[in-house]
Amino acid sequence: MSVLVVGSIAIDDIKTQVEQHTNLLGGSASYASVSARFFHPTDLVGIVGSDFPRQYLELFRARDINLDGLEIAPGKTFRWSGEYEADLNKRQTLLVELNVFDTFDPKLPAAYRTDPIILLGNISPTLQSHVLDQVEQPRFVIADTMDLWIATTRPELMELLKRIDLLVLNDGEARQLTEEEALLKAARRILTLGPKYVAIKKGEHGCLLFSNTEYFSCAAFPLEEIRDPTGAGDTFAGGFAGYLASLGKERFEFEDLKRAVVHGSLMASYCVEAFSLNRLFELTPADIQSRYKAFKRISHFE
Amino acid sequence: MSVLVVGSIAIDDIKTQVEQHTNLLGGSASYASVSARFFHPTDLVGIVGSDFPRQYLELFRARDINLDGLEIAPGKTFRWSGEYEADLNKRQTLLVELNVFDTFDPKLPAAYRTDPIILLGNISPTLQSHVLDQVEQPRFVIADTMDLWIATTRPELMELLKRIDLLVLNDGEARQLTEEEALLKAARRILTLGPKYVAIKKGEHGCLLFSNTEYFSCAAFPLEEIRDPTGAGDTFAGGFAGYLASLGKERFEFEDLKRAVVHGSLMASYCVEAFSLNRLFELTPADIQSRYKAFKRISHFE
Repeated sequence: MSVLVVGSIAIDDIKTQVEQHTNLLGGSASYASVSARFFHPTDLVGIVGSDFPRQYLELFRARDINLDGLEIAPGKTFRWSGEYEADLNKRQTLLVELNVFDTFDPKLPAAYRTDPIILLGNISPTLQSHVLDQVEQPRFVIADTMDLWIATTRPELMELLKRIDLLVLNDGEARQLTEEEALLKAARRILTLGPKYVAIKKGEHGCLLFSNTEYFSCAAFPLEEIRDPTGAGDTFAGGFAGYLASLGKERFEFEDLKRAVVHGSLMASYCVEAFSLNRLFELTPADIQSRYKAFKRISHFE
Repeated sequence: MSVLVVGSIAIDDIKTQVEQHTNLLGGSASYASVSARFFHPTDLVGIVGSDFPRQYLELFRARDINLDGLEIAPGKTFRWSGEYEADLNKRQTLLVELNVFDTFDPKLPAAYRTDPIILLGNISPTLQSHVLDQVEQPRFVIADTMDLWIATTRPELMELLKRIDLLVLNDGEARQLTEEEALLKAARRILTLGPKYVAIKKGEHGCLLFSNTEYFSCAAFPLEEIRDPTGAGDTFAGGFAGYLASLGKERFEFEDLKRAVVHGSLMASYCVEAFSLNRLFELTPADIQSRYKAFKRISHFE
């Protein structure tokens, strides 16, 4: 009984004001599955081209991520290129080449269909729904989304929202989706659209979790330096999903979800310390425990 | 042994995109002293003109705030007028009339000079230093500041910083003072300038407290509606100072300061629910206890 992660798998070129790197492993499913796998067995669903570097496949295999749902199609892998401003909250997309992703039609291996925790990583709501159509009575469904889908596929996103437990998005996207400026109001509005919970990511200001009756504010871990924010949101969602799956529960309390938010946030705080998934690949369970304790220390008071 | 609060006392005209009100009680010392008085006896130092409404004096008296250090000078009271944009983080100052404040030369009554906790509310660093010159071995000195003083009286502010325990300022001001974009770096830099602690206020994103070795992130209380943000920072500083004074300690641990930040934040969260000090004037100790518990609930996880 694994956590199922679907999303994009990409080759990224990334430039900050300080450095630039090319041909990096990227994509929402890459970050999310590697993050989730720290906590629980993980089934990956995605597509890459025949050009996908063998060493990147090996990185997934070395971490024992189930690749039965990974399709290797003739053609080129999805490519993305972006440049960050000095304010790392701002970036420009320089290039998007969908390549094999353009014809992605996710088909779940039979063993995936009963996975209890489903993470619909950041891809179009149509594809996300298509994955949901193939699973059987999942316990908890998480969907990530972004400004592009809110702007271009709003009806499909609205349909999806009726079928999920938790929507993950950032503060700007919550405002865009609801046309509410105050995040409390935006969250309330989102909860009327279907999800039982909504997590609003605020970058360096942490993350908020809302239900209809409860609220949690998760601090951001104070970082000396952020080298590359790419994938932080996907890593958050993966950590959240993996941690939740690791609990092995039939039902989740708000306290469970709070801890999942903290685990997602701490994974994201590691992610941004290096380019691509490099920091995640060298992370140890002891690192995670240590930062979990640090999160408590910086948030709690008596 | 009271908490000493010095700052401005003003008559405000305030406009938001929703409503406007004139001839309101305002000024940094008004908000800070009323906030502090919820926790500890409070000595006020300030100046008003002979036009200062008697009913506003009565409001201070009714709360048993010591007015021995309040000078009533011939002339008009300090007046301020501002207008908020739809984004309440942005405001324009429409009018500043210093009036009697222009010649303010704070003189401390003898009984004030041994106050253990000193809150130098948001006035020029020269006046703040002048107050510090008159106190005897205070246990903890807090100074609030703003963009105006950083821009126009930087040398005087630098001198003041060497003499205080805690600097309170907002995120934009921390960046302005240090020319560091990352708040962690800005805080570290400020701690090299004199203060043992720095509190960086982030409005709806809460507040951060730094020492050289410790860090605390205080959530913002989620509010349905913010009617008037004026005075929130002063109310925070007053709540912080009053709570700290109420502990009656000779020395303070970081844990004490964390709780003081939470008390300051919850007082500020009440302040912005109404114009001027109106919400503070109807607040009860039970309200404060209840919101303190709420702050714990929204910040803690196990």
